[in-house]
Amino acid sequence: MARTRGSHSDITGPRVERAALELFARDGYAAVSMRRIAAEVGVQAGALYNYTPDKQTLLFSLMKSHMQDLLAAYDAWEAPDDPLGRLEAFARFHIRFNSERPAAVFISYMELRNLDPEHFAEIEALRRRYEGALVDILRDGAATGVFDVDDPRITAFAMIGMLTQLNTWFRRGGRLSLAEVEELYWSMLRRLVAA
Amino acid sequence: MARTRGSHSDITGPRVERAALELFARDGYAAVSMRRIAAEVGVQAGALYNYTPDKQTLLFSLMKSHMQDLLAAYDAWEAPDDPLGRLEAFARFHIRFNSERPAAVFISYMELRNLDPEHFAEIEALRRRYEGALVDILRDGAATGVFDVDDPRITAFAMIGMLTQLNTWFRRGGRLSLAEVEELYWSMLRRLVAA
Repeated sequence: MARTRGSHSDITGPRVERAALELFARDGYAAVSMRRIAAEVGVQAGALYNYTPDKQTLLFSLMKSHMQDLLAAYDAWEAPDDPLGRLEAFARFHIRFNSERPAAVFISYMELRNLDPEHFAEIEALRRRYEGALVDILRDGAATGVFDVDDPRITAFAMIGMLTQLNTWFRRGGRLSLAEVEELYWSMLRRLVAA
Repeated sequence: MARTRGSHSDITGPRVERAALELFARDGYAAVSMRRIAAEVGVQAGALYNYTPDKQTLLFSLMKSHMQDLLAAYDAWEAPDDPLGRLEAFARFHIRFNSERPAAVFISYMELRNLDPEHFAEIEALRRRYEGALVDILRDGAATGVFDVDDPRITAFAMIGMLTQLNTWFRRGGRLSLAEVEELYWSMLRRLVAA
């Protein structure tokens, strides 16, 4: 049966994705059945299969969408040409993008273990593209003598690690605003590369 | 029935903990039943209840043991008296301790969401004690002018974030040995506090 514009499955798609994201983040992929996702959306389990062939494909498509959104938003993010300006743009982008998507970020780390090998390889390739953007900034800065970096790849991992960990402790309404935390993190990143 | 030394449940305890740790890390707490843990250990489900009253208590005791082991091992770790030496000791300790326990570290972040509120509060208090040890080092270094730190608490979170993230990408037999990675991370931590 051909899908037509505005069909039931077109409308249901985003609701399925939202429900699956919330349930996977709360209970973990292995604990959540297609039946439970369907119940959360308010449709019959069979209706889900108009949208996705199986739960593995649904997990993969959630993680792929998240990485593609991340890469597209980063490409569209304004940054100056110099390495220090690009590093600052990367830091501020990463913090703001991730702080708005805690469930997707949580899943994109936690559920890597549940991806089939070929799906894992595809997500890893997208993740490496994003990490590679930061590695390039660090290499360019080191090449022009603006940065002093021992190992650009390891420094990139460390930076992404500290920026991403923010999601595990930052709470709105706490001692510091997100804008204040962003300034502190940017100041730390600058220290990590100071020549 | 009184438990006697060397009884079945004494012998089974460590095997239950090991099986639960592996299964929770692989599939997530919510997906793993007591029956499945029992099958992994090779006992009847009923026998598990000699060891733990329920699955929540089992999760809590795994996370608590992990944090208590961490704190005891850190207390026993040799460190000089000066802030820079203490920071170096913290970094090397954290990397070595965590790299040997990937499943426990993974669970201790991922399954916080599944702890009952009073269990959560107890684990959080242990975690704050560990973070507090690093905050104290940073404050002492700042007070004596050896370190320049904007916000000791946030810097401690950032440091623990980057050190812990190591577990998600480091693989033995890769480009760098753990000893080499440890040197690179220690060099980055020193940069983060350089006065």
